[in-house]
Amino acid sequence: MKTLKIPEATITRLSVYSRFLSQVDQKGIVTISSVEIADGVGVSPAQVRKDLAYFGEFGTRGVGYNVQDLHMHILKILGLAQDWTVVIVGAGHLGSALTMYNGFRGRGFRIVALFDQDPAKIGSEYNGAPVLPMDKLKDIVQSKKVDIGMVAVPAEHAQDVADSLVDAGVAAILNFAPRVLSVPNNIEVRNVDLSVNLEILTFNLVFNRDYQKA
Amino acid sequence: MKTLKIPEATITRLSVYSRFLSQVDQKGIVTISSVEIADGVGVSPAQVRKDLAYFGEFGTRGVGYNVQDLHMHILKILGLAQDWTVVIVGAGHLGSALTMYNGFRGRGFRIVALFDQDPAKIGSEYNGAPVLPMDKLKDIVQSKKVDIGMVAVPAEHAQDVADSLVDAGVAAILNFAPRVLSVPNNIEVRNVDLSVNLEILTFNLVFNRDYQKA
Repeated sequence: MKTLKIPEATITRLSVYSRFLSQVDQKGIVTISSVEIADGVGVSPAQVRKDLAYFGEFGTRGVGYNVQDLHMHILKILGLAQDWTVVIVGAGHLGSALTMYNGFRGRGFRIVALFDQDPAKIGSEYNGAPVLPMDKLKDIVQSKKVDIGMVAVPAEHAQDVADSLVDAGVAAILNFAPRVLSVPNNIEVRNVDLSVNLEILTFNLVFNRDYQKA
Repeated sequence: MKTLKIPEATITRLSVYSRFLSQVDQKGIVTISSVEIADGVGVSPAQVRKDLAYFGEFGTRGVGYNVQDLHMHILKILGLAQDWTVVIVGAGHLGSALTMYNGFRGRGFRIVALFDQDPAKIGSEYNGAPVLPMDKLKDIVQSKKVDIGMVAVPAEHAQDVADSLVDAGVAAILNFAPRVLSVPNNIEVRNVDLSVNLEILTFNLVFNRDYQKA
């Protein structure tokens, strides 16, 4: 297997560029320079050019990039030339908020259902997605061809939920629980721990204050 | 200035260890081995020992760690020996969901107010935190000694909001908008872009399928 390694920071910036290009396209602008992209998203023009160069030659020297072509190309790189079907396990505050969050839908992520073990939550609906009991998970993943499962349950249930999602047949898991998940090698996993992100900030604040004195 | 560099992955795991130790402590367990911590959070025992070794010697060979001592020590490293005061700018779905999310409060993050420019949102309350107009931001940051501002507005307003937060006097910003923010060097910034995290997954799914063929 070839192992062309694209830095994750590049993928992150491509995602940001593509949302900026979408806005620019909506304004009817046809061409854009790397300097204008850089200004729009807050990185250097050299960084923009370097990130795009991973994926071949775009744009024309002295003219810039065609906005729609570049946008489509980046979406394709990011896997967003298709829609993705998503389920969320855990219909608490976080799961329901994720379902209401409009940022996903605009990028082609379609949340088809939430799952919960709490009978009081079953039957609710968020943004058109019903809350279903856990024993329906496999049926829905199979029948709706669900690609991605989000784990929005407390840490102590996260591994069980991940096992259920893998068994049901998802290809990828976005994990919001503060626990490292074990999954087979062919399953993509990514962790988003909201508290960890705050705690990296506070670590830096305190560490810089208390430990980095000259 | 000394530049002792702790990998961010270590800080991330310390945050996970500390939440696991909190659960263990609540069960009344007094000592714990690195193997038990490793099992509880899903990493290797060697990794646990290596992460803890950055911060000095803990535990007793053959006995393990005192749960409460280790927990307190990690909290101190993470900057969680104190409470932190937080404001959120943007009272839409994401901002209100962040306010409702209980994961922050349990770690000592106190969200004191949300801010929005939409008059229709002002006067609402989430989890005891009022939604206030933007022109009150500086007053509140100063009077409540707010440390951290969260940016939960659309990308095109994120830089203006960050400028307002810096001007108001926060020390750190957690940015949920898909835009790279420019801030002075003394301000800590961290980006949490929920869509980016999904898109890194889909990039990996598609990239592995289409580009990594042998």
